[in-house]
Amino acid sequence: MVLRDLGEGGLIQRIRDRFQNSGAILGIGDDAALLEMPSGHWMVYCSDLLAEDAHFIRRLHPADSVGYKAVAANVSDVGAMGGIPMHFVVSLAAPGNLELEWVDAFYGGVEQACRDFGVSLVGGDSSSANTIFVDVAMIGRVRQGAAVRRSGAQAGDGIYVSGTLGSSLRGLDLLRRGDRVAPAVKRHLYPQPRHNVGAAVADQAHAMIDVSDGLSTDLGHIVAESKVSARDYKDKLPAAAEAHEFYVLHGGKEYELIIAAPELPPIVDGVPLTRIGEILPSAGHHQLFLIDGAR
Amino acid sequence: MVLRDLGEGGLIQRIRDRFQNSGAILGIGDDAALLEMPSGHWMVYCSDLLAEDAHFIRRLHPADSVGYKAVAANVSDVGAMGGIPMHFVVSLAAPGNLELEWVDAFYGGVEQACRDFGVSLVGGDSSSANTIFVDVAMIGRVRQGAAVRRSGAQAGDGIYVSGTLGSSLRGLDLLRRGDRVAPAVKRHLYPQPRHNVGAAVADQAHAMIDVSDGLSTDLGHIVAESKVSARDYKDKLPAAAEAHEFYVLHGGKEYELIIAAPELPPIVDGVPLTRIGEILPSAGHHQLFLIDGAR
Repeated sequence: MVLRDLGEGGLIQRIRDRFQNSGAILGIGDDAALLEMPSGHWMVYCSDLLAEDAHFIRRLHPADSVGYKAVAANVSDVGAMGGIPMHFVVSLAAPGNLELEWVDAFYGGVEQACRDFGVSLVGGDSSSANTIFVDVAMIGRVRQGAAVRRSGAQAGDGIYVSGTLGSSLRGLDLLRRGDRVAPAVKRHLYPQPRHNVGAAVADQAHAMIDVSDGLSTDLGHIVAESKVSARDYKDKLPAAAEAHEFYVLHGGKEYELIIAAPELPPIVDGVPLTRIGEILPSAGHHQLFLIDGAR
Repeated sequence: MVLRDLGEGGLIQRIRDRFQNSGAILGIGDDAALLEMPSGHWMVYCSDLLAEDAHFIRRLHPADSVGYKAVAANVSDVGAMGGIPMHFVVSLAAPGNLELEWVDAFYGGVEQACRDFGVSLVGGDSSSANTIFVDVAMIGRVRQGAAVRRSGAQAGDGIYVSGTLGSSLRGLDLLRRGDRVAPAVKRHLYPQPRHNVGAAVADQAHAMIDVSDGLSTDLGHIVAESKVSARDYKDKLPAAAEAHEFYVLHGGKEYELIIAAPELPPIVDGVPLTRIGEILPSAGHHQLFLIDGAR
């Protein structure tokens, strides 16, 4: 059976049956969902899309990984504000001749992500299209005033990175070679965002961002938005096992956090935090210095 | 210049410069936006996607219409809950060789919709793709307990429709024939959702839905979700000028409201409301009767 045979009404009913316990006042099935925001909190709001051939390859990436990743990327963004992810909507555009098996596996990945990250699906949209597009928009909460932006880093802050870097692209390389079980492949297919770490350090952190485009690019965003400079040390970077140096520095979709803070504990929520450098005052130009060699 | 030359960073900067006054605590440019929900309100949350060739044709629909419609469809959904639309995120996937002129006009349409509907863009995502894909997710507010669902219609309620029906598809026909100025074409390209009407009747309405798939389908949703039957009269339907009967009954993307309520005034917020029939009790099967002839 293919998607076209089910029709949009059939698809909505199928999703609605599967995602009943949303914790929302009203979930899937009306013109919009109804949600409650706990008092004393701000809403954290973001979206992240996955396009076939740009973000995933149908013959290479299992459908459940596409669903899982679409949710995980948003969980990571909410976490990078120090927030707690709550509810999301997902839009899926796909060819009418797409096997229903793919669609079911896709929502299976979405469902697994809901369990793993404590979030819930409350709505969305669907359509036909020539290739597959997935877009997730997520709502979270953060205590009023406790949100951590990219722009708050101060000279003297340490720069910390959670977990390890470099395995997502290594996982993709291995996947291309047919490996579906190596830890790096698992991490590429089912990334584990650090939202719990983000929420835990929100009170100490001056600036925070998740590694979605690569350490060099994302630390560059903190530097530019905070109007500071930064120095990090190549030999301090927490490289994943067998990760290529280029991937450690520039590999995206890692969903680790980069945190600027005066001082952080070495382990938060079971995840190691590594100090990789410092924020420096900036004289006009905001620069990122990578020190090659021991500190 | 084409989209590829600008790059994602350049695109974000361009959008950020254009949409600065979002009314949000934090708008475009961080991992997520930060918003405040006024106390005593629930959040209304929905999304609506537009896929090239399924919802619009690049050589036929101007880019600003695509941006305008994507926002309008969501404004309509929030309004159909009795809510007031507030903030949205937009994801755009498009070919790298797409003219920047298209992208600028697209965001021009988004900007015009922001002005017309009193909403603001606070974030989003972008990517390359083979065809154009637009997804908007919108947040609104509704007073706690005042939301109007599809499921509340009661036997004895009148069924009301706002404005007129049948002009969106007629507009598409005219557009295909090269007409770009007829009122029906304007309405097809730049639909005017009835969110102000929805919010104004929220206290009286028992059930409400917007006409996105056609009167027959959408009134059918109220009937099914409310577990009632309904009778409407063909000669009571508020047909737009020169609209084909088929379009009046089944044409989608009208963004008028269908409202079940004991009694409503004939004009709300300057928009006529027409009583087209009644909600009936239902014995097992929930049916929709279309009466052909005078009442």
